[in-house]
Amino acid sequence: MPRVTTADLETLSVEVDGDGVATLTLDRPDALNSFTVTMARELERFFREVALDDDVRAVVVTGAGRAFCAGMDLSAEGNVFGLDETVDPTPEDLRAHLTEAPYADGVRDTGGKVTLAIHDCRKPVIAAINGAAVGIGATMTLAMDIRLASTKARIGFVFGRLGIVPEACSSWFLPRIVGVQQALEWVYSAEILTAEQAQAGRLVRSVHEPDELLGAAQELARSFVVGRSPVALALARQLVYAGTAAPHPLDAHVADSVAMWHTSVGDGKEGVAAFREKRDPQFTGRASELPRILPGG
Amino acid sequence: MPRVTTADLETLSVEVDGDGVATLTLDRPDALNSFTVTMARELERFFREVALDDDVRAVVVTGAGRAFCAGMDLSAEGNVFGLDETVDPTPEDLRAHLTEAPYADGVRDTGGKVTLAIHDCRKPVIAAINGAAVGIGATMTLAMDIRLASTKARIGFVFGRLGIVPEACSSWFLPRIVGVQQALEWVYSAEILTAEQAQAGRLVRSVHEPDELLGAAQELARSFVVGRSPVALALARQLVYAGTAAPHPLDAHVADSVAMWHTSVGDGKEGVAAFREKRDPQFTGRASELPRILPGG
Amino acid sequence: MPRVTTADLETLSVEVDGDGVATLTLDRPDALNSFTVTMARELERFFREVALDDDVRAVVVTGAGRAFCAGMDLSAEGNVFGLDETVDPTPEDLRAHLTEAPYADGVRDTGGKVTLAIHDCRKPVIAAINGAAVGIGATMTLAMDIRLASTKARIGFVFGRLGIVPEACSSWFLPRIVGVQQALEWVYSAEILTAEQAQAGRLVRSVHEPDELLGAAQELARSFVVGRSPVALALARQLVYAGTAAPHPLDAHVADSVAMWHTSVGDGKEGVAAFREKRDPQFTGRASELPRILPGG
Repeated sequence: MPRVTTADLETLSVEVDGDGVATLTLDRPDALNSFTVTMARELERFFREVALDDDVRAVVVTGAGRAFCAGMDLSAEGNVFGLDETVDPTPEDLRAHLTEAPYADGVRDTGGKVTLAIHDCRKPVIAAINGAAVGIGATMTLAMDIRLASTKARIGFVFGRLGIVPEACSSWFLPRIVGVQQALEWVYSAEILTAEQAQAGRLVRSVHEPDELLGAAQELARSFVVGRSPVALALARQLVYAGTAAPHPLDAHVADSVAMWHTSVGDGKEGVAAFREKRDPQFTGRASELPRILPGG
Repeated sequence: MPRVTTADLETLSVEVDGDGVATLTLDRPDALNSFTVTMARELERFFREVALDDDVRAVVVTGAGRAFCAGMDLSAEGNVFGLDETVDPTPEDLRAHLTEAPYADGVRDTGGKVTLAIHDCRKPVIAAINGAAVGIGATMTLAMDIRLASTKARIGFVFGRLGIVPEACSSWFLPRIVGVQQALEWVYSAEILTAEQAQAGRLVRSVHEPDELLGAAQELARSFVVGRSPVALALARQLVYAGTAAPHPLDAHVADSVAMWHTSVGDGKEGVAAFREKRDPQFTGRASELPRILPGG
Repeated sequence: MPRVTTADLETLSVEVDGDGVATLTLDRPDALNSFTVTMARELERFFREVALDDDVRAVVVTGAGRAFCAGMDLSAEGNVFGLDETVDPTPEDLRAHLTEAPYADGVRDTGGKVTLAIHDCRKPVIAAINGAAVGIGATMTLAMDIRLASTKARIGFVFGRLGIVPEACSSWFLPRIVGVQQALEWVYSAEILTAEQAQAGRLVRSVHEPDELLGAAQELARSFVVGRSPVALALARQLVYAGTAAPHPLDAHVADSVAMWHTSVGDGKEGVAAFREKRDPQFTGRASELPRILPGG
């Protein structure tokens, strides 16, 4: 089984508890955990690897020190966005050459590489927003499944102030979480939201005292995975996200039929047997070995 | 005009009042109305037939006794899911052979056959959730248009506990009702929700005293259909669901232009005349004879 | 630079303040600003022109007198819907001949021509609903980004009472704003909602005293545009709406990568420079000259 590689991380730290709940900490506290190319590369790798590491059952993401992530590190010299100014891309070009270096390197949004990896992760991912989450610090949490915040959290989609657009696939995630009216207001206003405002707008699931936030997020993660089938959980995650974008319920029917078939001949047998025998189930399926349930997926 | 066949129902009972409001009762109270293959077949047939029965204008669904539907009947012997374990389907296979027996019988999710029939129904469908609604008992209500609950309702997307995935096209419906964050939390947690929790999460429209629930649901149904055009109502239902999944407002424009054209030369003439003459309209259009407003529909 | 033509407007009046906030008033107060073919043509032209007028940065829409817009003017003689009764269109026909006169003139929903123009507008559009907003008076606000209401606002999707369907692409917008359950209930009930009901259902962002509504809407508009890049704002608007309907986050990634690339070589440079230099940015990009960020767009 592949394992998450944590030995050589510069910008992140990772701990996995006995229940398989990994806590991933954005760990540049002196720089308010601001987002760098190294952090992006490490986050993408972490989420791609953790998807295949069956010892990790869920991921909680938080920030070291008083910030969650203060956004892109704008202190770097030169071309802060790291893009190739000579390219002049069209959507069709980019789609056709999405993985071709140097073309894609010169065009693809760095934050989106991270959020696509989070989206492909096969485990519940929970954001524990402990402080400032601004710019990419805010948008990276949108690809996580559930957001908890400390009373000290401050969340801002501040791109408009910098003359740039919201990125990291946030236009896909944000309206699915809060609806299109709220999404547009926050993007237009570029204001910094308090935890309470974020909760009122349904971005944040719950607000906690600072010293209780991480524990609450880990406990929630634990409640999702202990005694559950990792395969069923991973497939359910795929189903729900795909369902938000499927043209017709029939598309969902095809996907959940295939997923039901696979789980019914797999962990579902144990689940039903345990239910009948009034005992805890012992699931053996592995999220690293998922059946394909979506067309082309 | 085709009529709903209710004489030979084993698991359901149906009553239609003078305003055309049908009350469909899941009627296996000794088994907490748990879901069986027979119930699935009868529900699918009911909703397919009622779509074409112009004497029925709206449907209220409730459960006999103290439960709404306690989920799949797991007391059956042998292969509880009723699927063919030898098939090993891909999404492409299933899509290509969606109606071919025995292939489709061996793969297609039973709950989805029911919710697709509810989705194709041409009338408002209201769930009156009177008690436990668990598993398919919960997911079948998602394809209904509006959910009312009694204070005794308990709703659970408990699939994760059994090692299986949410089904019945629930991945299409649930995030459209409550947003993706709430949908994922409920699916991951597999908790039993109280009526109040379900209402706070916007799954349930309103909560009622147990002895007032069914009356409230029937009254709501009546308010939707008395003095209204069944054709306009059926087309509006199709428009709203299709609109949630259309790529661009232009797709909605095409569909609602065609629907407006058909109603403007139909019941819309009577509606405008009645409005001008300050009298109640007498609509003559029939939901059993709808124009096609969606491509390929 | 093209300019909005306001000299010959019959049904609308327009004022633009020093910050580029245009206030568009539906201006037939003696007829409760009811919707006519002339008003439709003027609204469509206004929003198509304003998209290209760089002196206008945001649009606030309100009604003169005590109504916002009391719906289609049903007092006209003859064929009130203005459609060609001989056409009998299919969705495929209409799609294929969407711009061909007289075919399209005889089929296309008039309200949809207006809301598609609002959707294509490149500026924030805010509805200040000062009174009755009924029928097309309600649905036209759905294509606007954000809705504020006076305590005197009354909003009704009353189509069902007239034997016709909701139009103006409302089936695309309404569920994206309020969710599918609330959308269906309002469409089925055809009730007139108070401002408070509309806010509880998340249709309306905030409710204001009548004499404070317009000022609040204008102030909100101002907060969106002063010191911001019109290009970044216009692209963000496109991204969010497209994101609600994109099949996969990867589609959003392509679009926001292209948008990020263009803003990073454009106004983003000034934005980052101003941020570093702790001064206000001086953006020079023009919304009239947007890069193409969506396939086929």
